[in-house]
Amino acid sequence: MENYNRLVARCNKIARLGQLAGLAGWDQQTYMPPGAAEARGEQLAVISELIHEMTVADETSQLISSAEAEIAGMDSDSDEVRSLRVVRRGHELATKIPGHLVAEASRHQSVAMPLWAQARAESDYSKFAPALEKSIELARQVAEHLGYKDHIYDALIDQYEIGATRADVAKMYADLTPHLVSLTAAIRDAKPNDDSVLMGNFPIDRQQSVTLDIVKSLGYDLNRGRQDIAAHPFCSGFSRDDVRITTRFNSEFLQQALYASLHEAGHAMYEQGIPASLNGLPISNAASLGIHESQSRLWENQVGRSRAFANWAFPTLQAAFPESLGNSNAEAYYKAVNVVRPSYIRVEADEVTYNLHVALRFELECALLSGELSVKDVPSAWNARMEKFLGITPPNDSLGVLQDVHWSIGLIGYFPTYSIGNIVSAQLWNAASREIPDLCRLVETGQFSPLLYWLNTNVHAHGCKFLPSEIVLKATGEPLNPAYYVNYLNTKYGELYGL
Amino acid sequence: MENYNRLVARCNKIARLGQLAGLAGWDQQTYMPPGAAEARGEQLAVISELIHEMTVADETSQLISSAEAEIAGMDSDSDEVRSLRVVRRGHELATKIPGHLVAEASRHQSVAMPLWAQARAESDYSKFAPALEKSIELARQVAEHLGYKDHIYDALIDQYEIGATRADVAKMYADLTPHLVSLTAAIRDAKPNDDSVLMGNFPIDRQQSVTLDIVKSLGYDLNRGRQDIAAHPFCSGFSRDDVRITTRFNSEFLQQALYASLHEAGHAMYEQGIPASLNGLPISNAASLGIHESQSRLWENQVGRSRAFANWAFPTLQAAFPESLGNSNAEAYYKAVNVVRPSYIRVEADEVTYNLHVALRFELECALLSGELSVKDVPSAWNARMEKFLGITPPNDSLGVLQDVHWSIGLIGYFPTYSIGNIVSAQLWNAASREIPDLCRLVETGQFSPLLYWLNTNVHAHGCKFLPSEIVLKATGEPLNPAYYVNYLNTKYGELYGL
Repeated sequence: MENYNRLVARCNKIARLGQLAGLAGWDQQTYMPPGAAEARGEQLAVISELIHEMTVADETSQLISSAEAEIAGMDSDSDEVRSLRVVRRGHELATKIPGHLVAEASRHQSVAMPLWAQARAESDYSKFAPALEKSIELARQVAEHLGYKDHIYDALIDQYEIGATRADVAKMYADLTPHLVSLTAAIRDAKPNDDSVLMGNFPIDRQQSVTLDIVKSLGYDLNRGRQDIAAHPFCSGFSRDDVRITTRFNSEFLQQALYASLHEAGHAMYEQGIPASLNGLPISNAASLGIHESQSRLWENQVGRSRAFANWAFPTLQAAFPESLGNSNAEAYYKAVNVVRPSYIRVEADEVTYNLHVALRFELECALLSGELSVKDVPSAWNARMEKFLGITPPNDSLGVLQDVHWSIGLIGYFPTYSIGNIVSAQLWNAASREIPDLCRLVETGQFSPLLYWLNTNVHAHGCKFLPSEIVLKATGEPLNPAYYVNYLNTKYGELYGL
Repeated sequence: MENYNRLVARCNKIARLGQLAGLAGWDQQTYMPPGAAEARGEQLAVISELIHEMTVADETSQLISSAEAEIAGMDSDSDEVRSLRVVRRGHELATKIPGHLVAEASRHQSVAMPLWAQARAESDYSKFAPALEKSIELARQVAEHLGYKDHIYDALIDQYEIGATRADVAKMYADLTPHLVSLTAAIRDAKPNDDSVLMGNFPIDRQQSVTLDIVKSLGYDLNRGRQDIAAHPFCSGFSRDDVRITTRFNSEFLQQALYASLHEAGHAMYEQGIPASLNGLPISNAASLGIHESQSRLWENQVGRSRAFANWAFPTLQAAFPESLGNSNAEAYYKAVNVVRPSYIRVEADEVTYNLHVALRFELECALLSGELSVKDVPSAWNARMEKFLGITPPNDSLGVLQDVHWSIGLIGYFPTYSIGNIVSAQLWNAASREIPDLCRLVETGQFSPLLYWLNTNVHAHGCKFLPSEIVLKATGEPLNPAYYVNYLNTKYGELYGL
């Protein structure tokens, strides 16, 4: 196993460099002084190119071949065989993309992100359009180098959700969208619920401490994590022992920070939950973005927007904000955090309309990549779909096409993983409910560790040893099945809106 | 110039990786969660080893030789000749130290620093002693690989202060110490000054904003910097466009944070002041630690502890802390920040006793390295010298041998650069005073830019193009001369204490 061990050690070195690049990315969005943007771009370009060089190097290639010979005949589910499969895939993907393109893309991201931030602040799409043009062009080049059978989109989504294709995703939305549209319409015709309890005066220092207390109760380990503020909340891990979340506070609206924290803590508990025994192995990463998102959404929604959670959390929130919540109660809070209302901003959308926001982005990305849509026409295409899916038109581009950071940092082919995550979250929740007696009662009494342990065992423990589809099958006993998500929404919102 | 240009590009890549390692070090001392210590150690070990590999690689070596052939005959003061000299020295130093030793030292630092922090917190030297033993052993190994003529210490100090030797430093202290001891004694016999004005209630949020306002007034550019909190204040730059300072706050003692901020801002303005035209060149670094310290001490002491500064800053401080400073005045403040009193902690020591603390560390390091002193005897050796130099004995090891981070992070042979910096600061201040009409009057009216411009032009502009000794000569017209420092102290404290 000499070559296998040398390969694993080499991959671990590359992973450590990736962790440092991750730290630099975290810093870029939290504490970096604005004047450092260009220097940071250079730093990230250099380390990205180096990681790429080391990944595609002849030495790596030769070690992979020799290691494959060494493990020939081993159990196809062994750590060794699966580790090698992960390494070979990474090597092959990287080999297809020339180093100069990796560096150029990395440099472009560091330039494009501040341009996006400025454009969003000023609601001026023209300030971002040239950078988006280049992002699309770079994504096209990457896709052509990676290759695809059917549609250029296939090459990109496969990077984030191994094995997924444009056709799969189109079918997923074809199945999902009619249910979402009809549920949204039924709710629109029903008696509206009230979320005014979430508006008021919620001092930020108290929000900071109460969100931290709550995510700690869920099981987010602050000895191996921390929470900071970012314009666009995210979770970033640099090993299982350093997984950080960010949130953003609004002193007049309680839901924003709390549910961003729940969401990001869900991501973080996934990475913190990958077992130490996988440390240093190529299978110690998360399985895919879809599986990642299933964890964030499960804690944010199936847990955080449940009546059981409301019953548990409300007294804590009321004690923290007696001025604003003193006269309310858990049931009003539960209704408030589940108000369904077509809105402009994806990350603040309710569970019912959320996936319509994502479907919109998926359609635009496909059209941009194939050339059917030009960059200058994106705002009008965006607004037309908002009207079609949600019946509303953003009053400006900050609330429309400029709201997400993703395109500025080259994340194209990424959005559908959010919908995959939602579907998986419902399916996992269903399986956990079958296997953990009285799960809702446990949530209601703040006993989150049985659920976290179940996720640790059935999802986190695997790292990326198995494919996303294999993990879903092992954890739930069946392949990905959107029916659980549709059923979850219909039951919950049917009751909430008396449908 | 093809090889020269390729070499410069390669060195710039290496420098960018060093900047990322620097960021990881900054994070380690500011925001990193405690559980991440081991992972961070691995990350830093990997990148340090990689930087080392790239520095010593045959490709670097060949490019240096080819580039030297290309520039043969050019002006010996040209950027090209000087850049190559810097690169060759770095290459030769690195080539002498095996990669595994670099990685081992880096790993050890990440383990030893938290052990030191814990030992300091618990005032338990035994918890740090084994790590110190290993730090010394690693330093010895490094020194033996680097080689030296006279004393093992020579190999180590040369890394920080190019050309300095143990004998030079011993002579420097032989010249300095008698003056410091006699001045300290004279002050001890004089009527004591009172620093009670600095004690009181100084809310930390107001200290944060007032220290930031003051360092901004001096010329520290917050668009390319920021201030955070650290147990042991430091300045850390990752390019001239990202130079960060840290400080530590004490709500009952104003001087601690303010003078840490002034000191670190002095360091930061040096790195921010290295011209953009040197970007990407091997000469774009600071010249030496001694020159670096001359900048921090000049702003902290020659400026920050001057009567002119007190007259300018006191009204601002009084407005920020009316409860504690309302009944005081600038002259009382001036006297208070210049109280001389033998004390335990180096970084809080006054200007007169400060260098005695450093002389102590220099003597212990020499004895540890040569084997005359064993690690277990360091606390008693420390305390004996404290008694000899300052007439006091630390009541515990937190206030004694455990106070400094340096030995835990492998900085051995480093301390004397603090004294060199003090001497250079006085010599530069003297030269600036001759060349800038009415300098004290400018400080008194908050006009710091002529001084900063003078330092930009005479010190910062050179980067490390010239040797420290050349910079001192160019800036002041004569070689390093401790007489300016002795004279500065005698004049200032003679007046303050009526000697």
